[in-house]
Amino acid sequence: MSHGLPTQPAASFVRRRRALGARLNGPALLFSGVARPRNYPANVYPFRPGSHFLYLTGAWLENAAVLVDGERDVLFVPAEDPEDVVWHGPSPGWDELQAATGVAEVRDIAELGQAFGGAGERIATIPAVDARTRFSQGRLLDRSWAEPGAAVELGERDAALADALVALRSVHDDAAIEMLRGAAEATVAAHRAGMAATRPGLREAHVRAAMEASLAARDMGTSYGSIVTVHGEILHSRGYGNPIAAGDLLLADVGASNGGWAGDVTRTWPVSGKFSPTQRALYDLVLAAQVAAIDRVKPGARYRDIHLAAGRVIARGLVDEGILKGDPDNLVERGAHALFFVHGLGHLLGLDVHDMEDLGDRAGYGPGRTRSTQFGLAFLRLDRDLEPGMAVTIEPGFYQIPALLEPGSKLSAPFDSDGTLNRDALAKFADVRGIRIEDDVLVTPGGNEVLTAALAKQAADVEALVGGC
Amino acid sequence: MSHGLPTQPAASFVRRRRALGARLNGPALLFSGVARPRNYPANVYPFRPGSHFLYLTGAWLENAAVLVDGERDVLFVPAEDPEDVVWHGPSPGWDELQAATGVAEVRDIAELGQAFGGAGERIATIPAVDARTRFSQGRLLDRSWAEPGAAVELGERDAALADALVALRSVHDDAAIEMLRGAAEATVAAHRAGMAATRPGLREAHVRAAMEASLAARDMGTSYGSIVTVHGEILHSRGYGNPIAAGDLLLADVGASNGGWAGDVTRTWPVSGKFSPTQRALYDLVLAAQVAAIDRVKPGARYRDIHLAAGRVIARGLVDEGILKGDPDNLVERGAHALFFVHGLGHLLGLDVHDMEDLGDRAGYGPGRTRSTQFGLAFLRLDRDLEPGMAVTIEPGFYQIPALLEPGSKLSAPFDSDGTLNRDALAKFADVRGIRIEDDVLVTPGGNEVLTAALAKQAADVEALVGGC
Repeated sequence: MSHGLPTQPAASFVRRRRALGARLNGPALLFSGVARPRNYPANVYPFRPGSHFLYLTGAWLENAAVLVDGERDVLFVPAEDPEDVVWHGPSPGWDELQAATGVAEVRDIAELGQAFGGAGERIATIPAVDARTRFSQGRLLDRSWAEPGAAVELGERDAALADALVALRSVHDDAAIEMLRGAAEATVAAHRAGMAATRPGLREAHVRAAMEASLAARDMGTSYGSIVTVHGEILHSRGYGNPIAAGDLLLADVGASNGGWAGDVTRTWPVSGKFSPTQRALYDLVLAAQVAAIDRVKPGARYRDIHLAAGRVIARGLVDEGILKGDPDNLVERGAHALFFVHGLGHLLGLDVHDMEDLGDRAGYGPGRTRSTQFGLAFLRLDRDLEPGMAVTIEPGFYQIPALLEPGSKLSAPFDSDGTLNRDALAKFADVRGIRIEDDVLVTPGGNEVLTAALAKQAADVEALVGGC
Repeated sequence: MSHGLPTQPAASFVRRRRALGARLNGPALLFSGVARPRNYPANVYPFRPGSHFLYLTGAWLENAAVLVDGERDVLFVPAEDPEDVVWHGPSPGWDELQAATGVAEVRDIAELGQAFGGAGERIATIPAVDARTRFSQGRLLDRSWAEPGAAVELGERDAALADALVALRSVHDDAAIEMLRGAAEATVAAHRAGMAATRPGLREAHVRAAMEASLAARDMGTSYGSIVTVHGEILHSRGYGNPIAAGDLLLADVGASNGGWAGDVTRTWPVSGKFSPTQRALYDLVLAAQVAAIDRVKPGARYRDIHLAAGRVIARGLVDEGILKGDPDNLVERGAHALFFVHGLGHLLGLDVHDMEDLGDRAGYGPGRTRSTQFGLAFLRLDRDLEPGMAVTIEPGFYQIPALLEPGSKLSAPFDSDGTLNRDALAKFADVRGIRIEDDVLVTPGGNEVLTAALAKQAADVEALVGGC
């Protein structure tokens, strides 16, 4: 994504700003932020605008802000710096920007101070993600925010803006769905490229390179740091240096960023192209849990219930394999499934891969709902009642995490002592370190649509793609 | 690069810390920094430690710091968080860290406060690049630094540390040279991959994908945002969306990061695989300037003189083509060459692609030297007398930048009015928007060694590689 104009019609952004304005009692100002330095100020990470700003304008602009105030929308942008033209080329003209975003007016962001000076506390805002913008924003709007990086307690006006943004952004409009479809399509292609590039004797880095190159060739990046590893039990593994060998499962959690909109897909495949019987058994179990969960995605369903239903499928399967003993419902109540399925079933998906997580649990948890403290459930990022237009991931998994399963560990000891956990049966599955299967699912009036359905998921279909080119 | 231990022997880092300590009158504390959020706190850009910390420890660690204090080196790291093990896997043990970095002691970074509380102003430091670390660092060490992102005026103690770091880091030791060679080799391979992937009708993004995939397959990233564009006249072009057509030149400025150490190479090639006669003429001219400049790289040479020598080659060539009129030496004095060769000839290369640019011009300009205000020379990042062990880039170019060349522009008008610039002659070269040729050069006792010499540079050799696979 390069700098500049929205790629979708101005009407989409006008509609969003009007809808936001209708939910507010006063003006709101959202900032795009600035690029962050890697190792010195001029060497920056790839810029992406703040998601609230991007949602409301579609404009990929640095150091900009949008004022939503009834019909009087103003886009504030930096004045063109003659030297900057030499280094970065011409910027879009203000007329172009106005037409493409549908705002009433474009103004110089240097005028923000005089526009609001002294009356900033009347204007609702959300803290920018980058410290530099947040600092100047806090000064401009008279917010006494804490040190860089620390959590912010929103005041009443800002909290009302946050709630309005959550209400708006959690139910995707047609323009958003179009972008999510584009992200899903590119994500599917990246996973196919990764499967095709897999061969024993290479390193994880080789497969990651093939997957991200597939995105880069479409002029897309990733919406989060890719996980491509034979150590799937390290949930957010950050390295790509391990060799990949014939007996390994490779877990790839990679998603496209399509103009900021996120794809988020995980597949787990055998490096050799053929699952072992034990790998296949647990793969099919995770798949069964995923299919059962997706079947329950529909308007009115509570996401936490779907998470627990997936947990029951996992628990039942582990009982069938002799790894756990007991009644599946009871095992899930006691959290025994979370020895292996340690994280939440999924999260909201949108302009952020964990959509609106900059607002904490405000988006993921409805009013009156809070996170459980039970291990496993505590990691559940979403507990809403689903509505048409919401997009979620469904991503159950099975992991053998040494730190959790170590005999005598706080988590496993109770299940050892009462005979729930059969370590001899578990030992047969030593060639399964981690499996996750994840798709992106749109809630529709009649149920749901899997946006990433084009990607192989049945074990045999996955096997057929590995090492294919 | 994954998190963790140094990849080079501990002795290298001990030697560097001793050498730094010997140049100081008291203790110094350097921070690795923390990952920066992209769009919400948990979704971060790929982390890289601060370069001073990385230079002194080789350890790819977040939220760490190293104390250099005579023989008493202490590495401060976060205590392992049990939950973090689930998400990110085990961290290196403290014994391992101590052995691999050669420090006297490893301690919990939470103890920094009590270790220095109240006496922080006695300890020299350099401001971290990320705002979060810089804030806590400033509080710990009693520095009253300005707002996030703003330039910092170093106090006397910190300035002495900065000077010592510049003296040390600007002359590369064997371990550094080994890493630079690795970066150079990967960078050369990436450029070959880019040339091979070039075909008319694709987009810039496709070539960039091939180049970065070549790096990613080696488990390396880039040391700066890649420039891959048919609009080479936009010096730091940030997009990759343009189609590449048969008559275009493609300019690629892409460099590997090898454990943080930078490669930095530019090549310019014809999308069709064949330069037009006008493209070839100016390509050969830029190449002649580059070769002449590299010939002058040796101990004792002043970098600014090399820059001006390259400018004279460019000026002479443009006189030969009828584009400029006058004596080449005189044209360079008046800055006429900078109409087309607008930037500096190069910069220091090391752990940062513009090495130590976090310290401003302290590294690039020796004591008593400051930047010129003349257009062109003002962009020169380096004006040192060269010493064996320094690494520099040599990267002359030719660009037709519309904003600079527009008739009546401040820069071109004087050369129009006195007949220096012949616009009719220039018009024949309309198919040349931008050419740059850049290599990485190590100063040796006997002259220099081009670290990236393995990459084709002669026009015919480049042509032979385009579209090759």
